[in-house]
Amino acid sequence: MTVTDIALVGIGKIARDQHIPSIAADPAFYLAATVSGSGGIVGVENHAEIGAMLAARPDIPAVSLTMPPVPRFAAASAALGAGRHVMLEKPPGASIAEVLKLERQARAAGKTLFATWHSRHAEAADAARDWLAGKAIRAVRVDWKEDVRKWHPGQDWIWQPGGLGVFDPGINALSLLSKILPVSLHLTGATLSFPENRAAPIAADLTFAGPDGLRAEAVFDWRQEGGEIWQIEIETDSSTLKLTEGGARLHVDGAEQSVEAPGEYPSLYRRFAELIEAGQSDVDVEPLVHVADAFMLGRHIAVAAFHDDPQEIS
Amino acid sequence: MTVTDIALVGIGKIARDQHIPSIAADPAFYLAATVSGSGGIVGVENHAEIGAMLAARPDIPAVSLTMPPVPRFAAASAALGAGRHVMLEKPPGASIAEVLKLERQARAAGKTLFATWHSRHAEAADAARDWLAGKAIRAVRVDWKEDVRKWHPGQDWIWQPGGLGVFDPGINALSLLSKILPVSLHLTGATLSFPENRAAPIAADLTFAGPDGLRAEAVFDWRQEGGEIWQIEIETDSSTLKLTEGGARLHVDGAEQSVEAPGEYPSLYRRFAELIEAGQSDVDVEPLVHVADAFMLGRHIAVAAFHDDPQEIS
Repeated sequence: MTVTDIALVGIGKIARDQHIPSIAADPAFYLAATVSGSGGIVGVENHAEIGAMLAARPDIPAVSLTMPPVPRFAAASAALGAGRHVMLEKPPGASIAEVLKLERQARAAGKTLFATWHSRHAEAADAARDWLAGKAIRAVRVDWKEDVRKWHPGQDWIWQPGGLGVFDPGINALSLLSKILPVSLHLTGATLSFPENRAAPIAADLTFAGPDGLRAEAVFDWRQEGGEIWQIEIETDSSTLKLTEGGARLHVDGAEQSVEAPGEYPSLYRRFAELIEAGQSDVDVEPLVHVADAFMLGRHIAVAAFHDDPQEIS
Repeated sequence: MTVTDIALVGIGKIARDQHIPSIAADPAFYLAATVSGSGGIVGVENHAEIGAMLAARPDIPAVSLTMPPVPRFAAASAALGAGRHVMLEKPPGASIAEVLKLERQARAAGKTLFATWHSRHAEAADAARDWLAGKAIRAVRVDWKEDVRKWHPGQDWIWQPGGLGVFDPGINALSLLSKILPVSLHLTGATLSFPENRAAPIAADLTFAGPDGLRAEAVFDWRQEGGEIWQIEIETDSSTLKLTEGGARLHVDGAEQSVEAPGEYPSLYRRFAELIEAGQSDVDVEPLVHVADAFMLGRHIAVAAFHDDPQEIS
């Protein structure tokens, strides 16, 4: 097996929790450098800026970008421009247009661009897709609810314009749903709840339409307390499928099905290695389209201010 | 020349001002029916619902849809499902996902779908595109300002979610700009001003990035008084191009250039006839992508309430 040197850009929570262990466990990759303005990790060469890394290490053929979506385009474009294969955390950009530009740039450069959607690699995702194939879909209900204070501590960028607010987790549900459903949905209505002191929504209710009168509903909420709920329930003509724990577990008519898969981030790096080997890209903007449609078509309402520290509430 | 019978759906201001005279003047089309719940036009068969028209008139091969974007998808899908060629007013839908669905449906049905952008057919649009081809672009500035009370009297739908507010005219500028510019832009920031009593923006400031540090700015405003300003100014390495009056007039370094073209809506129907003849579709979602990106990435701010009748202001 060819071992590909890879640089990891943005050493925050998701990099430490997921990317670094997954790269370490994958024999196809060797973590040759990091890029972080606040220091990297022990034993790995770090650069403060991606431009410096690209200049110093022309021998590193692959780059994985984990920083927030707003600064990601410039980094991705620079890496592709320097002839590297690029893997993007989700969402792949702050705008749809910039992702489409990166796709064209990668094609022109003959490099791999992989816009990842980690929830599509959840343990039960393939099994759910296979089980639903060919079935008539009667109803879809998504509940994606978590405590923002627990899951996004101190992540100020998610509350800024472009940070997407509750759609940062919610887009995971949309990416998983669009992978497993045998039919295509489009948004028909939405209500986005913006805390009066924030520029991004803390909750969203979405309605989608599919073929033959199919209606899908999704409820995203960051005000959940007492344990997260990340589930998708799909009623078919024969039975009801339920994915829980973000797609890790699969139930049919209440009975849990056994599934086996390597897990989200290990699977993402497997896929990145395959794409590089095959000289292909994988860029699907559909989940981001649904989010943009929700911002465009949705009703925006103001709700109570949100404070990271509940003691601050006056 | 084959004369194609056409049905016009939605008999509002734009239908009466533009579609009906353009169809009447085009030898390729004959206005065989209208669909309007509030009555059609003298001398033309009218149906209250599109479903009734499609059922009663299987002999009409082409349908032009002018109703507001939110109800347009169902009508377009029904017409394509009944084997008709379909022309869509701008914007082509209330969501990007639904337009992509219609495109797939048209392809599967072997019918023409034409998502029109009338400003791309403004008198000076082709001349501007040709003049800009191959030139280095230094700066772009769009001003699209009109009095909403003058141009959208009583159009309540434009203030509803999905009605797009000031982006309803603004998307005309974006469609024209993306036609004439030799480079591609992506949105990097936006401020959307929502009147405190409305669900759609009355003004928007947009910033875009292009290659080599190019920056483009667009200002849309519905609070304009004393005459509308619909202009695009593009500075190149040699000189400055300016389109005024929505693209009807072209100036280079201040000197007006003579242009000759049939005008926006006559040109749209010419194009629709050509597409039907060639068995092709023309669906470009780029202008809608920029608008959705602006809603998603932009900062939303509240501004003074808007009243159709200024006397109502308390």
